[in-house]
Amino acid sequence: MSVRDRVGHVVEGARFQRVIIAVIVVNAVTLGCETSPSLVAEHGAFLTAVDRVALGVFVAELAARLYAHGPGFFRDPWNCFDFLVVGVSLLPAAGALAVIRSLRILRALRLVSMVPSMRRVISALVKSVPGLVSLSGLLVLLLYVGGVVASNLFQPTGDPRFSDLGATVLTLFQITTGDGWSDMMRDLMPAQPLAWVFFVCYLLVGTFTMLNLFIAVVCSAMESEIGAQPTVPAPREAPDEVLAEIRALREEVRALRLQSVGDPD
Amino acid sequence: MSVRDRVGHVVEGARFQRVIIAVIVVNAVTLGCETSPSLVAEHGAFLTAVDRVALGVFVAELAARLYAHGPGFFRDPWNCFDFLVVGVSLLPAAGALAVIRSLRILRALRLVSMVPSMRRVISALVKSVPGLVSLSGLLVLLLYVGGVVASNLFQPTGDPRFSDLGATVLTLFQITTGDGWSDMMRDLMPAQPLAWVFFVCYLLVGTFTMLNLFIAVVCSAMESEIGAQPTVPAPREAPDEVLAEIRALREEVRALRLQSVGDPD
Amino acid sequence: MSVRDRVGHVVEGARFQRVIIAVIVVNAVTLGCETSPSLVAEHGAFLTAVDRVALGVFVAELAARLYAHGPGFFRDPWNCFDFLVVGVSLLPAAGALAVIRSLRILRALRLVSMVPSMRRVISALVKSVPGLVSLSGLLVLLLYVGGVVASNLFQPTGDPRFSDLGATVLTLFQITTGDGWSDMMRDLMPAQPLAWVFFVCYLLVGTFTMLNLFIAVVCSAMESEIGAQPTVPAPREAPDEVLAEIRALREEVRALRLQSVGDPD
Amino acid sequence: MSVRDRVGHVVEGARFQRVIIAVIVVNAVTLGCETSPSLVAEHGAFLTAVDRVALGVFVAELAARLYAHGPGFFRDPWNCFDFLVVGVSLLPAAGALAVIRSLRILRALRLVSMVPSMRRVISALVKSVPGLVSLSGLLVLLLYVGGVVASNLFQPTGDPRFSDLGATVLTLFQITTGDGWSDMMRDLMPAQPLAWVFFVCYLLVGTFTMLNLFIAVVCSAMESEIGAQPTVPAPREAPDEVLAEIRALREEVRALRLQSVGDPD
Repeated sequence: MSVRDRVGHVVEGARFQRVIIAVIVVNAVTLGCETSPSLVAEHGAFLTAVDRVALGVFVAELAARLYAHGPGFFRDPWNCFDFLVVGVSLLPAAGALAVIRSLRILRALRLVSMVPSMRRVISALVKSVPGLVSLSGLLVLLLYVGGVVASNLFQPTGDPRFSDLGATVLTLFQITTGDGWSDMMRDLMPAQPLAWVFFVCYLLVGTFTMLNLFIAVVCSAMESEIGAQPTVPAPREAPDEVLAEIRALREEVRALRLQSVGDPD
Repeated sequence: MSVRDRVGHVVEGARFQRVIIAVIVVNAVTLGCETSPSLVAEHGAFLTAVDRVALGVFVAELAARLYAHGPGFFRDPWNCFDFLVVGVSLLPAAGALAVIRSLRILRALRLVSMVPSMRRVISALVKSVPGLVSLSGLLVLLLYVGGVVASNLFQPTGDPRFSDLGATVLTLFQITTGDGWSDMMRDLMPAQPLAWVFFVCYLLVGTFTMLNLFIAVVCSAMESEIGAQPTVPAPREAPDEVLAEIRALREEVRALRLQSVGDPD
Repeated sequence: MSVRDRVGHVVEGARFQRVIIAVIVVNAVTLGCETSPSLVAEHGAFLTAVDRVALGVFVAELAARLYAHGPGFFRDPWNCFDFLVVGVSLLPAAGALAVIRSLRILRALRLVSMVPSMRRVISALVKSVPGLVSLSGLLVLLLYVGGVVASNLFQPTGDPRFSDLGATVLTLFQITTGDGWSDMMRDLMPAQPLAWVFFVCYLLVGTFTMLNLFIAVVCSAMESEIGAQPTVPAPREAPDEVLAEIRALREEVRALRLQSVGDPD
Repeated sequence: MSVRDRVGHVVEGARFQRVIIAVIVVNAVTLGCETSPSLVAEHGAFLTAVDRVALGVFVAELAARLYAHGPGFFRDPWNCFDFLVVGVSLLPAAGALAVIRSLRILRALRLVSMVPSMRRVISALVKSVPGLVSLSGLLVLLLYVGGVVASNLFQPTGDPRFSDLGATVLTLFQITTGDGWSDMMRDLMPAQPLAWVFFVCYLLVGTFTMLNLFIAVVCSAMESEIGAQPTVPAPREAPDEVLAEIRALREEVRALRLQSVGDPD
C-alpha cells in the first residue's frame, strides 16, 4: 500500500470526516460570535486563533486529499466547491477587499458536501440544471427586455426606481417576486395613466409563467430523482420473453405438423 | 377477558371516542371564550370549571389508555402527542410561566389525532420528513451563513434589523418569505450601494430554490401516498384475454393428445 | 313524444343554450354598467329593464328545465348552482339586504356551468374535495388554536389587530397569506420581545406546510383528472402481437388436429 | 437546385443563424444603451445607425425566409412571432405612437425563437394552453364578477382604488397576487365593517384556487412533455402467469411430439 493510498484511506475514513465536520461546526460558531462587538472585545484573540487553526486544518485536509487523489481531485464538483470555499479565505482581505472577510463563513457550507443526505438534495437540484439554465436565460432576457421598455416609459417620471437601466432591472426583479409592486404602480399612474398595462403584462408573463416553469422543472427533476424506482416499472423483457416462448412453441408445433404430414407418406 | 382488555375495548370504542371529541370541541370553545374579557368577567367561574372538568376527562382517558396499552402506549407517536399536549396543561402556570396557560388551547389539536382523515394528511406529511429534515437543515445553514454575511455587511449601517446575529437571522427569515424585502434593500442602499447583490443572491438561492425543493418533496410524498393506486394502470383485460386464448388452445392440444393417444389403440 | 320530452329537447338544444349564454353575457355587461353612476344617471331605466328581462329569461329557462327533468333536476349539482344564483336575485333587496343586490352579478358565473371546458376545470377541483375538506378543517383548526394563543399573548399590548378573537383570527389569516407579517411582528416586539417565536412558528406550520399540502392535493387531483389518459401507457402493441401470435398458433394446431382426425379415415 | 432552395439552404444554415443571433444581441445592447441619456448625448448617432442596420438585416432575413418558404412561412407560429416583432419596428413612431418606439426591444425576444432549448421551454408552455385558456377565462370572469360586487360594496366609501369598474378590477388583480391586500382591507373596514368577508372569500377563491390550478396545469403539461417515458407501468403477476401457462402448454406439446415420434416406431 503506497503512501498515497494510505493518505487517501485516512482522509476518506469516517473518523477523519467526523473530525472535519466538528471543525466546520466550531469554526461556524466562532465566525458567528465574531459578529458580536462585545464578544470580539472580550474574546477577540481567542476567536481569531480558533479561526486560524480551523483554516489550517482545512488547508491540510485539502492538501492531503489533493495528494491522495492526484489530478483527478478536481473532477468531482464537490471537491472544487471545497477548494473554492477554502481558497477564498486565503486571499488578502485588506482595504476594498474587506468584503471577502465576510465570505469566510461560506466554509460552513462545506457541511453540505460532508453530509450525504444534503449532498443528495443538492445533486437533485443540479440534475434539474439543464432546464434551469434555459429558464434562467429566459428570466434574464425578460428582465432585460422589460427593463428597456420600463426605462423608456418611466424614466421621464423621475422615479428613482427607474433612474437607469440597472435600477430598472433591479425594480423588475422586485416585481417578479411580487413584493410591493402595487404601491409602485400607484405611484407611477398619475404621471403615466397606462402604467398598469405594463405592470399587469409583466406580472402575468414574468411572475406567473416563470415561477410555474421553475416549479415544474424542479418538480420533474425531484420526481425523476426520488420517484425513480417506484414509477419506472416497465418489465419490457416479460412481453419479449413471452413472445420468444410462444415463437419457440410455434416452431415445435410446426415440426410436429411436418412430422404428422410426413407420417402417412 | 382481563380488566385491561375490557378497558382497552371501552377506550377504543366509537362511542367513547365521540364523547372525547365532544369534550375537545367544548373545551376549545370555552378556551376561545376566555380570550374575551367581558365573557370572563361574567362567566369566568363557569369557564374555569368547564376547563377543569375537560382536563380531568383527558387525564382520565389518557390514564385508561396508558393502562390498557401498557408500555407499548408510547410507541404510537399520536399517543405521545396526546400525552404532551395534556401534560403541558398540568404544569404550574404562575409568574414567568404564564405563557404556558395560553398553550392549553393546543389540546384542541387532539382533534387531529381523533379524526382519521386529518391523521392521514398529517402522516402523509410525516412520511416526507426524511426529505424535510435535510431541507430544513439546509435552510437553517443558509439562514446562519446568510446571517453572518449580512451582519458583517450591514451592522455598520446601524439598521436595527441587522443589530445582532439573532435579529439578522430573523430578518433573513422574513426575506425568505418575500415580505417587504424591497423596502429593506432600498433603506440599506444609500449606505451600502452593493446591498442589492446580497439581497438578489439570497432571494434567488434562499427563497426560490428552497421553496421549490419544499414543494417538490411534499408533492412527491403526497403522490406516493395518495396516487399509489391510480397510477398502477395495469391493462388487466389484455392479459386476461391472452390467458383465455391460451387456455382454449391448451384444451385443444389436450384433445389432440387424447385423440393421438386413442389413435394407436 | 310527450310535452315534457319536447320541452327537454328544446332546453338542452345547442341553439337554446347559445341564446342563454348571450343573455348571461348581456346581463353581465349591463350589471357592470350599473356600477358607473354617470351611466346609471343617463341610461338607468334601460339598464334596469335589461336586467328585468334577463332575470325573466333565466326564471323561464329554469322553470322549463325543472318541468323537463322533474324532481331529478336537483340531482345535478350544476342545476342547484343555477337555481341558487337565479333565486338570490328574486329575494327582496331593501334596507339591510341591499347587499343582496350586488350579488346579482353572481349570475354571470352561470357561464361556467354553460361552457364545457370551464365545467371540466371546476369538476377537477371538486374531485379534489375529499382532500380539501380535511385540509380546510386543519387550516380552520390552526387558525382557531393560533387565534387563542395570539389573543392571550398580544391582547395586553392593545394592538387593534389582536383586540378580540375574531380580529386575531382575521390577522392570522393575513399572516397565512404572508402579506405584511413582518411589519406586524416588528410593531409587537417592543412590548413582547418573544413575539417572533409565535410568528416564525405560525408561518412555518401554517403557511409553508398548509400551502404545500394544498398544492399537493390539487396537483394530484388534476393529474388523476387530466393525466388519466396519457399516463395509462399500456404497452398495447405487445399484447396485440402476443394475441396475433397465439391465434396463428391456434390455427396451426386446429389444422394439425383436422389432419390427425382425417388421418385414420 | 432552384434559387429558392439555395436561399432556403443559406437561411437555415448554422452559420447564418449565428450571424443573426449576433445581430440580435448587438441590437439589444444598443437599445439598452439608448436608455441612458448620457450615452445617447455622446454616441446617439452611432446607436441609431446600429439600430437601423440591425433592422435592415432583420427585414432582409425575413424577406429571404419568406421567399424560401413561400406561403407556408406563416404556418410556423415562430415565424409569425418573428414577423410581428420585426414589423412593429417598421411602424411610424411619432406623436401618440412614441410608445411603439419602446417596443423595438421586443426584437431581443427573437433570441428565444433562435435558441432551441428556449424554444422547447416555450413550446412546453404552449402545449399547456388548452388548460390555460379556460383557466384564464375563469380568472377574467372572477375578476369581472368580483369587480362588480366590490364596486357596489366599496364605491360609496370613496376609496380611489374602487372609484370605477376598471380601477376595481385592477385592484382585484392586485389582491389576486396577494400584494398589500391587508392594508387595503383595514383601510375599508371602518366604513364597511364586513369588508373582510369579501376579501377573505375573494382571496380563498381567487388566489388560492386559481394559482393552484395554474400550477397544476403547467405541472401536468411539463410532465407529459418531459416525464413521458419513465411512467410506463407494468403488471408483473399477469406476465408471470402467462409464462407459466405457456410453459405448461409447451410441456404438453413436447409430450405429444415424443408420443408422435414414438408412435410410428
